[in-house]
Amino acid sequence: MARAYNFSAGPAILPEEVLKQAQAELLDFNGTGMSIMEMSHRGKDYSAVHQEAKDNLKKLLNIPDNYSVLFMTGGASTQFSLIPMNLLGEGQTADYITAGAWSSKAIKAAKKLGISVNELANTAKDVPTRVPGNDLEFTPGAAYVHICSNETISGAQVKEFPKTDAPLIADMSSDILSRPLDVSQFGMIYAGAQKNLAPAGVTLVIIRNDLAEKSPDTLPELFQYKHFMENDSLSNTIPTFPVYMIMLVTRWLLEKGGLEGVQKMNEEKAAKLYAAIDASDFYNGTAVPEFRSPMNVTFRLPTEDLEAQFVKEAAAKGMTSLKGHRSVGGIRASIYNAFPAAGVDALIEFMKEFEAANA
Amino acid sequence: MARAYNFSAGPAILPEEVLKQAQAELLDFNGTGMSIMEMSHRGKDYSAVHQEAKDNLKKLLNIPDNYSVLFMTGGASTQFSLIPMNLLGEGQTADYITAGAWSSKAIKAAKKLGISVNELANTAKDVPTRVPGNDLEFTPGAAYVHICSNETISGAQVKEFPKTDAPLIADMSSDILSRPLDVSQFGMIYAGAQKNLAPAGVTLVIIRNDLAEKSPDTLPELFQYKHFMENDSLSNTIPTFPVYMIMLVTRWLLEKGGLEGVQKMNEEKAAKLYAAIDASDFYNGTAVPEFRSPMNVTFRLPTEDLEAQFVKEAAAKGMTSLKGHRSVGGIRASIYNAFPAAGVDALIEFMKEFEAANA
Repeated sequence: MARAYNFSAGPAILPEEVLKQAQAELLDFNGTGMSIMEMSHRGKDYSAVHQEAKDNLKKLLNIPDNYSVLFMTGGASTQFSLIPMNLLGEGQTADYITAGAWSSKAIKAAKKLGISVNELANTAKDVPTRVPGNDLEFTPGAAYVHICSNETISGAQVKEFPKTDAPLIADMSSDILSRPLDVSQFGMIYAGAQKNLAPAGVTLVIIRNDLAEKSPDTLPELFQYKHFMENDSLSNTIPTFPVYMIMLVTRWLLEKGGLEGVQKMNEEKAAKLYAAIDASDFYNGTAVPEFRSPMNVTFRLPTEDLEAQFVKEAAAKGMTSLKGHRSVGGIRASIYNAFPAAGVDALIEFMKEFEAANA
Repeated sequence: MARAYNFSAGPAILPEEVLKQAQAELLDFNGTGMSIMEMSHRGKDYSAVHQEAKDNLKKLLNIPDNYSVLFMTGGASTQFSLIPMNLLGEGQTADYITAGAWSSKAIKAAKKLGISVNELANTAKDVPTRVPGNDLEFTPGAAYVHICSNETISGAQVKEFPKTDAPLIADMSSDILSRPLDVSQFGMIYAGAQKNLAPAGVTLVIIRNDLAEKSPDTLPELFQYKHFMENDSLSNTIPTFPVYMIMLVTRWLLEKGGLEGVQKMNEEKAAKLYAAIDASDFYNGTAVPEFRSPMNVTFRLPTEDLEAQFVKEAAAKGMTSLKGHRSVGGIRASIYNAFPAAGVDALIEFMKEFEAANA
């Protein structure tokens, strides 16, 4: 069967070339007679994979030498707790910018630890949504400022990151590696793998070494950034297969011209789709235009019944997972790095047909 | 190239049939036109996988209805901390049976939390090793008793679990699903996947519901057994591919006659290998005979130089990862469920040749 046009918000589409390579060598990696999944995480074949995954990330993102690339588990949601546990010293506070469901979860997890944190802005209360502007007043002496770069549910993306004195920490789960980035703006960047990086099961953390050093020794070692940094994420068995997939995906991104090349592809795809939405009164974009995400394109139809019908008819044509998040409804087309331009064209074509039949 | 005979202690060999099926459907699961790795963890295709993985485990282990099957992350080493964090109430204590490297790590992690725990026995100080007998004095009122069922490094296995008043908690990372088990003896069983279950990246937890209920609400939700139980492990994105592999591996085990059938295969493989060791003065088994593990067969040669030569020559013949753990040296042949009997025969044949050439 042909590949579906998979608009899933995550776990999400992976590059077909990457899947084909993983498939071809699934029982025999590098002529070893075994799968990458069956190898010791301390052996030389996996070590080379681990190193290349890190090297490719460093190349793509120009990661400065005073940062470490860590592979952790538990998803971005676990980071919501680990960040304050590691980086908030006794009596310190931190600033949180909330602009949607995910950044709201981050501050909720921090508050649960009994920590006093400051919600700097909350633009998440209404849909359509936007991300905050540059009118934020940061708390003097805050240990860090937390932000979510792309709100998957509402489809809003931070276009310009705020300038902060405190280290800026960004949840980039849904737009990591989708555009060039100045990593030195951040104290830490983290991302669950399952949208733009690899299958679910590994969490990428890019952290400035002096911040990682702050992990309290009293924390369990496997909750400490410092411990992961000092052990190159290999203190216990690492999810080797997802790291291997990060290696293949980052190799694919380098072949596509790195993040400049990928950004160009992403912007072309998104621009076409947003143009189709704006060209019609039948479809209405959800996010505030200046913050529209090129990763998650959200829009509404005149009624919820029409939305349900739209999702169903699209699926019958091989365009799957277009239903918006259950908390907000509507339509969401997630078109991550790996999503093919032809799939966007197919969706636009279908949108026209559907409008003609139902307007 | 032919499949290697992969004696790796973990990540370890997977059944060839399982890898072939995963390979065949890697780009198209169930005719959906997408990989199982690319699907939402909340969609119907993954839901069926999730359910079958749990159902197969329940069937294989006869898990009683008052237990929950959880899929977590972070490996068994993370459980070393989560167990006391979840199950040790204010002012309570717990008993730990140490019999090797892994159970020693478990008690170390508990102590790190500042908790007073009791080391009931420590048979891990010397190699060869054994597991404790039935002469243990448990602490009245202990919240739980922790034990490791199979010490991967020394190659010693608990043959009969102690009778305890407190809930018995067993780390079964290296012998889960290798033999029939009375789950009702345990308060909790846990296992990193990468030895006998699936690729690295998921941790199986089987827990009695009343114990899971004890998770303090003050813990971050993703550290709570209760939260995983209440959300069927789907509160955040689950590592879907390893769970899919658990489904395939457990399906394979059911086809092999369930745990009785698998135990028979395992005992035959181990008996042949131990017999070859005992038939020779050149090879010396490490573990105390009555506690020999059928999963990890450890032995020594007359000198470390000969051991190094043995490992090297075996690898040249396609028998890989026979080197003992770096902390103890010697030879370790890990022959988990998926390891083929023909590989054991090949090793025995090689042992004879090597002895003849070097004795």
